[in-house]
Amino acid sequence: MRERARKVLAPEVWDFVEGGSGTEFTIAANRAAFDEIALIPRVLTGVIAADTSARLVGTEAALPVAIAPTAYQRLVHHDGELAAARAARAAGIPYVVSTLSSCRLEDISASGADIWFQLYCLRDQAKNHELIDKAEKTGCRALMVTVDVPLMARRLRDIRNGFALRPEVWAANIDSGPGSEAHRKADWASAVAVHTSAAFAPGLSWRDLADLRRRTSLPLVVKGVLDPRDARAAVDIGADAVVVSNHGGRQLDGCQPSMRALPSVVVAVNGECEVLLDSGVRSGVDVLKALALGARGVLLGRPVLWGLAAGGEDGTGEVLSLLGTELREAMTLTGCGDVASASALRTERLKTHG
Amino acid sequence: MRERARKVLAPEVWDFVEGGSGTEFTIAANRAAFDEIALIPRVLTGVIAADTSARLVGTEAALPVAIAPTAYQRLVHHDGELAAARAARAAGIPYVVSTLSSCRLEDISASGADIWFQLYCLRDQAKNHELIDKAEKTGCRALMVTVDVPLMARRLRDIRNGFALRPEVWAANIDSGPGSEAHRKADWASAVAVHTSAAFAPGLSWRDLADLRRRTSLPLVVKGVLDPRDARAAVDIGADAVVVSNHGGRQLDGCQPSMRALPSVVVAVNGECEVLLDSGVRSGVDVLKALALGARGVLLGRPVLWGLAAGGEDGTGEVLSLLGTELREAMTLTGCGDVASASALRTERLKTHG
Amino acid sequence: MRERARKVLAPEVWDFVEGGSGTEFTIAANRAAFDEIALIPRVLTGVIAADTSARLVGTEAALPVAIAPTAYQRLVHHDGELAAARAARAAGIPYVVSTLSSCRLEDISASGADIWFQLYCLRDQAKNHELIDKAEKTGCRALMVTVDVPLMARRLRDIRNGFALRPEVWAANIDSGPGSEAHRKADWASAVAVHTSAAFAPGLSWRDLADLRRRTSLPLVVKGVLDPRDARAAVDIGADAVVVSNHGGRQLDGCQPSMRALPSVVVAVNGECEVLLDSGVRSGVDVLKALALGARGVLLGRPVLWGLAAGGEDGTGEVLSLLGTELREAMTLTGCGDVASASALRTERLKTHG
Amino acid sequence: MRERARKVLAPEVWDFVEGGSGTEFTIAANRAAFDEIALIPRVLTGVIAADTSARLVGTEAALPVAIAPTAYQRLVHHDGELAAARAARAAGIPYVVSTLSSCRLEDISASGADIWFQLYCLRDQAKNHELIDKAEKTGCRALMVTVDVPLMARRLRDIRNGFALRPEVWAANIDSGPGSEAHRKADWASAVAVHTSAAFAPGLSWRDLADLRRRTSLPLVVKGVLDPRDARAAVDIGADAVVVSNHGGRQLDGCQPSMRALPSVVVAVNGECEVLLDSGVRSGVDVLKALALGARGVLLGRPVLWGLAAGGEDGTGEVLSLLGTELREAMTLTGCGDVASASALRTERLKTHG
Repeated sequence: MRERARKVLAPEVWDFVEGGSGTEFTIAANRAAFDEIALIPRVLTGVIAADTSARLVGTEAALPVAIAPTAYQRLVHHDGELAAARAARAAGIPYVVSTLSSCRLEDISASGADIWFQLYCLRDQAKNHELIDKAEKTGCRALMVTVDVPLMARRLRDIRNGFALRPEVWAANIDSGPGSEAHRKADWASAVAVHTSAAFAPGLSWRDLADLRRRTSLPLVVKGVLDPRDARAAVDIGADAVVVSNHGGRQLDGCQPSMRALPSVVVAVNGECEVLLDSGVRSGVDVLKALALGARGVLLGRPVLWGLAAGGEDGTGEVLSLLGTELREAMTLTGCGDVASASALRTERLKTHG
Repeated sequence: MRERARKVLAPEVWDFVEGGSGTEFTIAANRAAFDEIALIPRVLTGVIAADTSARLVGTEAALPVAIAPTAYQRLVHHDGELAAARAARAAGIPYVVSTLSSCRLEDISASGADIWFQLYCLRDQAKNHELIDKAEKTGCRALMVTVDVPLMARRLRDIRNGFALRPEVWAANIDSGPGSEAHRKADWASAVAVHTSAAFAPGLSWRDLADLRRRTSLPLVVKGVLDPRDARAAVDIGADAVVVSNHGGRQLDGCQPSMRALPSVVVAVNGECEVLLDSGVRSGVDVLKALALGARGVLLGRPVLWGLAAGGEDGTGEVLSLLGTELREAMTLTGCGDVASASALRTERLKTHG
Repeated sequence: MRERARKVLAPEVWDFVEGGSGTEFTIAANRAAFDEIALIPRVLTGVIAADTSARLVGTEAALPVAIAPTAYQRLVHHDGELAAARAARAAGIPYVVSTLSSCRLEDISASGADIWFQLYCLRDQAKNHELIDKAEKTGCRALMVTVDVPLMARRLRDIRNGFALRPEVWAANIDSGPGSEAHRKADWASAVAVHTSAAFAPGLSWRDLADLRRRTSLPLVVKGVLDPRDARAAVDIGADAVVVSNHGGRQLDGCQPSMRALPSVVVAVNGECEVLLDSGVRSGVDVLKALALGARGVLLGRPVLWGLAAGGEDGTGEVLSLLGTELREAMTLTGCGDVASASALRTERLKTHG
Repeated sequence: MRERARKVLAPEVWDFVEGGSGTEFTIAANRAAFDEIALIPRVLTGVIAADTSARLVGTEAALPVAIAPTAYQRLVHHDGELAAARAARAAGIPYVVSTLSSCRLEDISASGADIWFQLYCLRDQAKNHELIDKAEKTGCRALMVTVDVPLMARRLRDIRNGFALRPEVWAANIDSGPGSEAHRKADWASAVAVHTSAAFAPGLSWRDLADLRRRTSLPLVVKGVLDPRDARAAVDIGADAVVVSNHGGRQLDGCQPSMRALPSVVVAVNGECEVLLDSGVRSGVDVLKALALGARGVLLGRPVLWGLAAGGEDGTGEVLSLLGTELREAMTLTGCGDVASASALRTERLKTHG
């Protein structure tokens, strides 16, 4: 599916999707951190059909998976977020709408999927409140605040490509059409980075998060936490979940892989909020590994974009269906009747691999 | 021998033999887990000729090795199981007949080899009892129940090949001729997987094993255990041996290598049953490494099929003869006069290799 | 920038700059020791603009970085040290003048940069005193004594190249013009090594360092310490700082990477002197990793020479500017408002990489 | 030098020299075990000229190095052992004559080098006594008994080459001319292995060693010990030294690298005998690493054969001279004034390399 997407996409869009910051060391480390974990199966547990259903931040889901908020999905397929959300609905899993979605939140919500809204805090505080209000009104089931973008890291592929949005794609939730900085191609910069730098509020603190917490009654998910001290802070301001994430290797290059951070975050939150994970999930076995290390569920990013690029709603559906099949198989092969059992699996780190 | 086999076999049969599940990560990990172990030889122990004989689950064997139960051996050579069993008899080691053997158990038993019967529990409980009764009547020396196939994992090579049995090969112990699902070629599936899914009982539990234990007085071997808690459960239902195995990397991809699991299983069973191992054994030194980590013996799978494919009974005999030579040499070079001494060898894990 | 430098330089000069001793194992190990460290970012710390300023051995610097003393900079650009020092002044960071600089200390000092003087103790003790006096008179802010060159290691590239200085480049602080051993090309040796062997005092001891400490009131920096016992000795003779360094992999091949030595040196000195680091720093993230492991700052060597070769003062400025940008970004992404905060970052060693 | 030797030698002789047993895994592991060790230099120790002299089992040597006993040196150069011994005399280090030397012990002794005699215990006990008597009479300074050849391991290169000695080369200490099994070329075997199998006594025990100990007053060196329990046994029978060795990777494939075994052997013998090491030494830095881990000295095997092949006595001399230069440099760079100081160096294992 990845190869099909690569063929379909313009090179600079492919780079925008695939690329990370700096040397892309973190991207490689994310994968190695999955590969080095070996699962230790249980046998003869009497499981016939593994039940993959999960409850994620109050949303019932057919898989312990939500679709990660990725920006500008119309870059990879003309139906963009609408197609992906429909595939999520069909698969029975939550779809997280990005602040930078290229379709409007209200239109995506109309797809009938369980929608969560991802918020990048903007400099324009009124706009933030407007977005939260809209999330509530359109029936979003959770508010996910991304906290690992105090600035957008230098993504060298985009800089080299002078990456900018095509006129027909724009940040539909915050701009009314093309014409923002995100469309002004430059030789020396990513226009998208220039745009986010202009739009996003810098210098956020836990106090800002606490304000958000008070403002909405939606479940609050804090995305982008690696240090267990920050996970603890999230619990303290009343977060319902944290997402252990390094932004798919797109922010700090040289960052800890999220699978390495997961166990200490799980210990730190001590069951007082849910722990989700993203950055590197590519298969159902990966999902099970994350559950075995204590995650409640995962977010799926690039594979969804591959499916969307290759085949719109159907392609995305194929990706999710395969993931479900793989997870069900892996759970059965490890004797897990349900997702809760997965956390009792033992694992071993294989240091000779990678 | 492996190269000779590759030349002789049709590509899709080669893939069926060599392939594993998913990314075949577990296959690579199995080998790395052998390679990373360094043996520490003893010197001047006075050993002239190392005695490789062993007693495996009550069967006297010339080597601490049994031939692993692999399905449909007539796929790789027209004499199939009959040839392999004759080679086992000549080598003086037990031959394990698979439920999915392509020759009938009674015919293989007539070879004069020490036969163990491997049982996949079938949905048809009467058939299970019939098979066990036949194993007893034909003089089988042990009953080995495979417990790591609650379903057959997705083996991508077979799926891509649309692998199906040729008409002249069928599961001689459970079908009366060609015509089962295993022969219906499909573009999107392995016919063999469809067949096993239809035939094998899902949802097995330790209670089922306990029932089997009561049903037969044959020594009971539980194959496919990695978690020490499961090894303990096997002891508790009265198993005579466990086989530490990940099914040669053909079931869960991302599974712990059996050599990594071995030491904790040995500790867990505490001498209350025998511990055998398979998945990755390729040489006499590998056998000695397994003994040094506490195994009583090993099962040999793919190398037997290579020998069988390359030269029938003679080819299999060559493989077993070379393995014996290698083991005898390795034992002499480490000062082990008999297999029991091997467990006193020290080992070191070399983390920089692989 | 590295590639631009490689194109501009004569092959034997490139080898002189890039090469290390022996198999260049230490050079590779230096890089691996950076790459294996993963940073664990903090979030929501309220940092808007990270303040990269630092105080290094009493010198205020815009970055926690000084330009490392490297010899004969006129080999790579005709303006040599003068250009590099001007770039340092523009970047607001200290410039360390080598005893083997190809411009005179007094001329470099006139650039207006904060200058530190690096001393190789010479056989000619009077000359040593003269150099120290000149360092004081020209307003140098610190005296850095290099202690890891009891002899110059065999650098095979230089030996193979029969490397010698061109007539227009000489050790301006100790020779009055071309004509020293450093210019006598030989097939079997590096002329530069022959020259240093003739000029440098062998057999230095801590007693010599203590004498130097008494002779000058300048802050004293001891460069080339890896063993924590030596770091402790530096504290004991009254050093103001140590530089954890393996001379960029140019001295002992098979030497511990400086990033591996750093943590125990930090513990050993117990805050009683500053700890700087060099050998392998290539990016702003590398700088932050060194700070996270307890360094007060770093010295930057080869990248400065790349910039100098590629574009003189401007090229050097580009290198420093990019480093500053990268460091600022990395600090912001890890929630560090200032360089002191960096030492509270957690790190993890990723053993599966490299 | 290695490349020069490869060009000069017939391919089957090159394979005989370079090859190891089985997959040659141990050969690679031997090198990795050196490479992974990082030395931590000391500075300012006042060392001007490092003194490399050592006392090895009572023999004064200019380097902590002896030439390892390797068989049939006339295979690689027509002057064979005579040339190598002369080079050893010139370099001031001991030369160990193999039982399988292709020149006679008495002729080699006449070279004036400090000679040690290496004994493979033969089936013919009278011959053993004769050899020991001759060693004493010809002024040998030590008797080295090799204990890791209870049989000669299968060296696949030699088997494939059907390796046999040329008529002009034979085991001059035990045969009177060509015509032994070692000269009978076979397609399926190494003639040299057949010969040693016929000649060497199998089933040796510590009791045999104790007998040898009583028979001679020469210092006794036990070569081929890895397990610390065996090192302890060597002390107990009165050995003066043990050589930690895996026979250069030519015996057990999958064997512990000798550098990994060294530290525990050093602890086990507790200073009650000397500890030497071989298997993988290629440079002066390697020698220093062995000393840092507690060895008193090393034996040098293949590099001597490379030098001998490439240039007879002169080539061997070049190898030894370079090794001395490298060692002297490495000692100076780590602040070691003499070989005793080397054992106080700290080391670190770098797990990310190899």
